Amino acid sequence: MSLLLNGLAASSGIAIAPAYLLVGSELPVQKQHISDKNHEVARLHDSFALSRQELHAIRDQAHRRLGQRAATVVDTQLAMLDDPVLFDSIEQHIVSEQITAEWAVQKVADHYMAIFERLNDNDYLQARGMAMRDLAKRLLSHLLGVKLPNPKQLDHRAIIVANNITPTDTAQFDRRYVAGLVTDTGGRTSHFTIMSKTLYLPVVVGTKKATAAIKDGDLLVVDGIHGKVVVNPSEGELEKYRLLAGRFAREQEAWGALRNQETISQDGRHFEVAANVGTLADIQDAQNNGAEGIVLLRTEFLYMNQTKLPGEDQQFSAYKQFVAAMNQHRVVTRTLDVGGDKRLEMVPLPHEANPYLGFRAIRIGLAKPEILRPQLRAMLRASVYGRLAIMFPMVATIEEFRQARQILDEEKASLEKSGVPVADNIEVGMMLEIPSVAMMADLFAQDVDFFSIGSNDLIQYLFAADRGNARVAYLYQELHPAVLRTVKRVIDAAHAEGKWVGMCGEMAGNPLATPLLMGMGLDEFSMNSGQILHIRSLIKQMNTRQLQPLVHRSLNAQTASAVTAMVKKFLKENNLE
Amino acid sequence: MSLLLNGLAASSGIAIAPAYLLVGSELPVQKQHISDKNHEVARLHDSFALSRQELHAIRDQAHRRLGQRAATVVDTQLAMLDDPVLFDSIEQHIVSEQITAEWAVQKVADHYMAIFERLNDNDYLQARGMAMRDLAKRLLSHLLGVKLPNPKQLDHRAIIVANNITPTDTAQFDRRYVAGLVTDTGGRTSHFTIMSKTLYLPVVVGTKKATAAIKDGDLLVVDGIHGKVVVNPSEGELEKYRLLAGRFAREQEAWGALRNQETISQDGRHFEVAANVGTLADIQDAQNNGAEGIVLLRTEFLYMNQTKLPGEDQQFSAYKQFVAAMNQHRVVTRTLDVGGDKRLEMVPLPHEANPYLGFRAIRIGLAKPEILRPQLRAMLRASVYGRLAIMFPMVATIEEFRQARQILDEEKASLEKSGVPVADNIEVGMMLEIPSVAMMADLFAQDVDFFSIGSNDLIQYLFAADRGNARVAYLYQELHPAVLRTVKRVIDAAHAEGKWVGMCGEMAGNPLATPLLMGMGLDEFSMNSGQILHIRSLIKQMNTRQLQPLVHRSLNAQTASAVTAMVKKFLKENNLE
Repeated sequence: MSLLLNGLAASSGIAIAPAYLLVGSELPVQKQHISDKNHEVARLHDSFALSRQELHAIRDQAHRRLGQRAATVVDTQLAMLDDPVLFDSIEQHIVSEQITAEWAVQKVADHYMAIFERLNDNDYLQARGMAMRDLAKRLLSHLLGVKLPNPKQLDHRAIIVANNITPTDTAQFDRRYVAGLVTDTGGRTSHFTIMSKTLYLPVVVGTKKATAAIKDGDLLVVDGIHGKVVVNPSEGELEKYRLLAGRFAREQEAWGALRNQETISQDGRHFEVAANVGTLADIQDAQNNGAEGIVLLRTEFLYMNQTKLPGEDQQFSAYKQFVAAMNQHRVVTRTLDVGGDKRLEMVPLPHEANPYLGFRAIRIGLAKPEILRPQLRAMLRASVYGRLAIMFPMVATIEEFRQARQILDEEKASLEKSGVPVADNIEVGMMLEIPSVAMMADLFAQDVDFFSIGSNDLIQYLFAADRGNARVAYLYQELHPAVLRTVKRVIDAAHAEGKWVGMCGEMAGNPLATPLLMGMGLDEFSMNSGQILHIRSLIKQMNTRQLQPLVHRSLNAQTASAVTAMVKKFLKENNLE
Repeated sequence: MSLLLNGLAASSGIAIAPAYLLVGSELPVQKQHISDKNHEVARLHDSFALSRQELHAIRDQAHRRLGQRAATVVDTQLAMLDDPVLFDSIEQHIVSEQITAEWAVQKVADHYMAIFERLNDNDYLQARGMAMRDLAKRLLSHLLGVKLPNPKQLDHRAIIVANNITPTDTAQFDRRYVAGLVTDTGGRTSHFTIMSKTLYLPVVVGTKKATAAIKDGDLLVVDGIHGKVVVNPSEGELEKYRLLAGRFAREQEAWGALRNQETISQDGRHFEVAANVGTLADIQDAQNNGAEGIVLLRTEFLYMNQTKLPGEDQQFSAYKQFVAAMNQHRVVTRTLDVGGDKRLEMVPLPHEANPYLGFRAIRIGLAKPEILRPQLRAMLRASVYGRLAIMFPMVATIEEFRQARQILDEEKASLEKSGVPVADNIEVGMMLEIPSVAMMADLFAQDVDFFSIGSNDLIQYLFAADRGNARVAYLYQELHPAVLRTVKRVIDAAHAEGKWVGMCGEMAGNPLATPLLMGMGLDEFSMNSGQILHIRSLIKQMNTRQLQPLVHRSLNAQTASAVTAMVKKFLKENNLE
């Protein structure tokens, strides 16, 4: 009999193949005191050397097989390994507490991971925590003489089943053989799920019991569309999933054909479908998926894992790369958006009772111009290498926008005075993510060149509900009429002043929201690259005029579930599912 | 030469009188180890007994002179003194650490105060912290044989000048002699400032240096309207302040005459001016100030300082007292509003990253019907003793309102089935404090009997700014056009369905907001009792039709400062300052 496991759909697609269990031995850390400190320190040295050697090999292979992005992850671990502070602090534990090298590694790693993982809303730091966990495991494997599971040994097409998959595991896969991935733990934003998306591998995470329930060689269906795993499927189930897989493949193919097309609706309106990016490595992804621009460039990556603020030149060189790579497509750079759940070592922030309602983003920028000014100068300097726009996050009042713009104008004048070229058609806009701004959009629209709706924060504030808080996450409702009315109000206000409106929150990539956003006239949709072709495909099949009755009914619905039902019915009736 | 001190205006009015310094000796806690534990424990016993005796005397005197409310504060300290846990934990410190009783008292008190005062957004717990500080001082005075300053000795009319004023100080004042108060520290919500307001005593707090700069007998002017203290004023200054005091007294007299009047505008529209109350003791205040109802009855007082949930009968008996005392005036009871900054010992809540965007108020009530149901039953049973209405706090979606109302209907049916009488005209409404509801007000208005706008939370969410956070408090702007537009939207939507709209946040008692709220047609204003007559006086002098141009201009202004200037100009031109 077949067995069904439920998990989270982390990367789309259907795979049917035998299971390959990637389960390592336990690494039993010996918590014992020692007398020969020098011996332990020498063992530590060896484990660092062996790990370094292995990581270099993995890095090279990853680069060859999977490209720069996979290699970068290994680089992070190599950098940690080469950081003398890591070695020294482990050594110090050995010497001062007279404990085994294993125990000392574990202690230091636990300390690091606790710092990184406590910030569980922060992808960047979580990734650092994961890298440390992965690295510690490797160091321990050498200290203990235990072999880590070796994904390289996979020599036939299979679905990897693991408790969790580390960044270095991912880097070692031979993509010819990996058909899909299933894990016990992990989340949608784990490194390997992001990686898998770029490789179009179906992934189901968080099944809790895959490694316990699945045996090596079991036939598996991984349904990465719905988050299901079928173990030893029946003939009927196989048939059903083959059909689904076929449909999915055709869909992918159809979407793939849209890569170099513009997003034009049936009635000839052009909508811009663009990418949100957070690192240089994302540009490739954006281009592979046919992004018509980058309408959210998160600049935080330049500040992460740094001990001091990045200099103007360093920033300039990064922005220039984005702008130049995207050619004459628009790149909207956002000024530093920290605070809230995102903290930076070099910008110490006060403890706050409610950080989401606190000192963040442009509020920090205006209070600390020593951060904002060099960033704006770097953006201005990069503007001549393509089509750069600038936006300010978390603006709540028109005074804030004007202050920020004033600083921008001052820096532009100062650069021009020094003979540094700056483009003279830079669009200056703002994120719209605070309800007060939606209420005042008609007046803001006179000042800004564009709005980019940050739906994630906007929805949280509209419902006074932190979506990261499980007890109130039910109030985070993208398709709620209150959200739609707010978005409509903003679009109408902007259009009345001849300005454009984009959206860069998750709602922009939600296919159920597309007919509504399109019908209301949203000009630009910015999303994770993997969603671009799907949304483009949808928009190209729809006609904005025909959407009006659906929009009208949705705006007058009472609940999000009523809207969801309406949209699903509409998509079904129009064969757009 | 005269000297000017600036502080915070904590209670309105002008007083001119000599200074009376209420400054105690230092209480030098001996941090030393002891050998005779029994002796120290005996000393501790004595200090408890002597403090108890004193507090009983203060309590009786306060009750006689100042009423139940002043006595309650002393009761809190007596209850702490009688709590065996307090004595035991001090005793344990003496015995286990072999330290003096003084040191042990200080340690335990510091521990309590740290817990209470850290929660500096929470008035209830802050008051507990203050009570502990006051009590510890009394215990130490007995242990050290040092006399506390004795406000009873004041035998002539004077202005009290102190570092800070404790609740028991306040309880000992002979109000015939106290003309005003000036302190170095303290805030607008200290116990003694609240007390002073009910006694119409001018108070300036937070001068930082009053006790250092003022000598006993110095002639003082306390300007509790503007937060200024003039030490040894010149003749010219005295003249100016006498005029101001005269004007203030006439104003007070004129307001006093409005106590039993209805609030009717110049064009004959009736506006209801009601009180926010939080304890039974507040009813007297509300009535003294001519409240036309209680439109926010905070029920939290029944849950505070309790170890288990209050029973249905206990709640019924309390609600009945409010409803009966207010005669046929409306009493709007709000279901339990905890979470956010308000925590209850018997309702353990999870740690939250952003409690203001978390599990609070009706969200808790719906998840824990064992709290909501008995409270609603108690309200329903009290409904036959007057004119009771019910409202739910923090409703974000129409489903939540309907669920809450469904529970109410079930309890009503169950009571009626058991033969318990319930009024059949109970109005059921909700707080409007979440932006999504404002966006959906037209649809909510079909379901509710009324809205009460909770401006404090609404403004915080509109601007995504915690007003308790000093770094972003500048974004809390009551007169911002975004707030006004939101309020207008709600009023218009409710009126279109024939429903009424009240406001129970601080904005309702802000005289600068009155012309705008009145002009937009707000039906009901609910505020701290001390503000009622002022607002009634303002409304009675205005004509809603004449306010329309001001409302129109304010709704189309760009900033709060522009609106503030417009309103001030309007009030000045119409002699309404």
